[in-house]
Amino acid sequence: MDTRSVGIVETQYATLFEPPNELQLDSGEKLGPITVAYETYGTLNQERSNAVLLCHALSGSAHAAGYHEGDAKPGWWDDMVGPGKGFDTDKYFMICANVIGGCSGTTGPSSINPRTGRPYGLAFPVVTIADMVRVQRELLRYLGINSLLSVSGGSMGGMQVLQMAVDYPEMVRSAIPIATAPLQSAQGIAFDVVGRRAIMSDPKWRGGNYLSFNDPPLDGLALARMVGHITYLSEMSMRRKFGRRLQDRERYGYDFSTEFEVESYLYYQGDKFTQRFDANTYLYITKAIDYFDLTNGKRSLAEALRGVRSKFLVIAFSSDWLYPPAQSKAIVSALKANDVDVSYCEIESDYGHDAFLLEVEEQERLISNFLAAVARETVISDPH
Amino acid sequence: MDTRSVGIVETQYATLFEPPNELQLDSGEKLGPITVAYETYGTLNQERSNAVLLCHALSGSAHAAGYHEGDAKPGWWDDMVGPGKGFDTDKYFMICANVIGGCSGTTGPSSINPRTGRPYGLAFPVVTIADMVRVQRELLRYLGINSLLSVSGGSMGGMQVLQMAVDYPEMVRSAIPIATAPLQSAQGIAFDVVGRRAIMSDPKWRGGNYLSFNDPPLDGLALARMVGHITYLSEMSMRRKFGRRLQDRERYGYDFSTEFEVESYLYYQGDKFTQRFDANTYLYITKAIDYFDLTNGKRSLAEALRGVRSKFLVIAFSSDWLYPPAQSKAIVSALKANDVDVSYCEIESDYGHDAFLLEVEEQERLISNFLAAVARETVISDPH
Repeated sequence: MDTRSVGIVETQYATLFEPPNELQLDSGEKLGPITVAYETYGTLNQERSNAVLLCHALSGSAHAAGYHEGDAKPGWWDDMVGPGKGFDTDKYFMICANVIGGCSGTTGPSSINPRTGRPYGLAFPVVTIADMVRVQRELLRYLGINSLLSVSGGSMGGMQVLQMAVDYPEMVRSAIPIATAPLQSAQGIAFDVVGRRAIMSDPKWRGGNYLSFNDPPLDGLALARMVGHITYLSEMSMRRKFGRRLQDRERYGYDFSTEFEVESYLYYQGDKFTQRFDANTYLYITKAIDYFDLTNGKRSLAEALRGVRSKFLVIAFSSDWLYPPAQSKAIVSALKANDVDVSYCEIESDYGHDAFLLEVEEQERLISNFLAAVARETVISDPH
Repeated sequence: MDTRSVGIVETQYATLFEPPNELQLDSGEKLGPITVAYETYGTLNQERSNAVLLCHALSGSAHAAGYHEGDAKPGWWDDMVGPGKGFDTDKYFMICANVIGGCSGTTGPSSINPRTGRPYGLAFPVVTIADMVRVQRELLRYLGINSLLSVSGGSMGGMQVLQMAVDYPEMVRSAIPIATAPLQSAQGIAFDVVGRRAIMSDPKWRGGNYLSFNDPPLDGLALARMVGHITYLSEMSMRRKFGRRLQDRERYGYDFSTEFEVESYLYYQGDKFTQRFDANTYLYITKAIDYFDLTNGKRSLAEALRGVRSKFLVIAFSSDWLYPPAQSKAIVSALKANDVDVSYCEIESDYGHDAFLLEVEEQERLISNFLAAVARETVISDPH
């Protein structure tokens, strides 16, 4: 374990929104109690002014950094979170929670519905990015944190960052949305539609009630993940990583067994995913992403961002075609139209959307400098 | 019916490769007899010098132009094929045949295996683009045609065009590959892998033996088609065509029923496809596409194209990300390295890969001029 690791960590749990204080969802439904799985790294200072919230992407969890006892692999953003890293745990108190609707400890469709004593399944209400942010905010309140030094995340995490800056401007001193967009595009919805249909047309999905059968829709979930993975890579990264190479053979097999390296990779990713992820959660989380549109009901993105008071660092990656740089630039323009202090950086990378997890060096430099500047401003004077 | 239509047409059938003259396939297997479904439009001249072969794409058929008796919709390339059109049937004798492995009249996995009296299913041999071209050539021989004025096609049709120019240089006076590539990219293979897995993981696929059950794997096939459709459009065309608009409703439903227009479109396309296409054929045709690599076993694309003697018109579309212009440019460069007479045109279009079926006007002008020039050269002098 390197000296820049936060070391062994444990997921913690908070029970929030206990009746009669249920969470009021965008759908109109109420939900509670809600268990929230979260982890923290570093130490909250006496002024409670050094807290940074990390928001995870589709398949992430509360386990952003360090190692769970016995695990060989660290959390999903370990490259960026630790002593001396981009999110420096010697300076900042990092918090990361599994989203509502998730399957890694926070209440979701695979949790037990207290009214029936059985898993929610499709009885779980459809949640939105704004609902996820409501839960994040309640967790912060539970932790005694009224103000965040920063909130950051990539992909769907970035959507939460944007939503939080809009919905709770007084809480968010700075925001770092990465590889994200102000809305889910038609093409993005299309890929999610395919993923959901793959799950829902798997007979083992059984209308969402598969948990009582102990025989989940693995084929459908694997297929959904395979589609997703194609959108996380770029044409260039696939060419470099696999090209047309065959897996463990010299020539074509002239049959339908796995033979291309890229095929073997996708199968592996799909099958591995089914060991740690719940099919219904895949439906709920992608639906939340598809519903995401900051401009919804507003005349423009600039109008949608009107109340924002956070300082922004927006990061995009040149070869990301799921959330292309043009969408980040639209965020930047709309923030500028509101006189928000915003820096934009498009990082040159062949890794596609996955770059937000892989391009560590440049993000580390950008984020540590940005956070240091925000922290300095906070100490010197805070007009709010 | 407009005056530029070829009118009512009928598919014809030829039986080729009767034993003991079976087709020798790339896989090493032999196949015969092979029924080939084909259509012709226009009149073969006395010199037999005005024949043009059209090669169809993944889901195409022999029915390129005109109307089948009782049909409301014409053939797949009717916009381009007819009196006074890009492929002018007043001047040229057009031929289009369903490919080997297909499901529209030519022998494929849903045909009856004469050895068993039952459908081939997966007992059908895996075929390649070169195998398809072998069958095309045998059909031409059957029709008494030794030389083509031109061969043209888009997408997989363009792959056949390239393969034919390489394998039968003496037959092909000119070639028009459209929206295609000299090889299937890793990303292209990846999407096909997903499509095949969707079919093969549908329990109704039954190892390919679904035909005897009269209950085909419609869900898997529809899903495969949905994935395909996303790759045929562009991000821009999806945004223009659908954006984030909801289908027949004002606000989010907060459930998992169909609600986005793009979702409804994909479902419609998927389900419509299952009414006219065979799941096993989808496996075989995409496998042929994935196997396609002109450079296979050669040091370079230029070396692969060394023997080519045809004049070329290469057409690509700016927003085609399935077979992007860069791949067409690679073909052009390799042809130029062999001193082949080649014209290249990249048509500006937002339609993505589908542009080859939709951008009629510019293709009509390019192709009619090109064919006229080739025809003139043929009349004046033919060194071969």
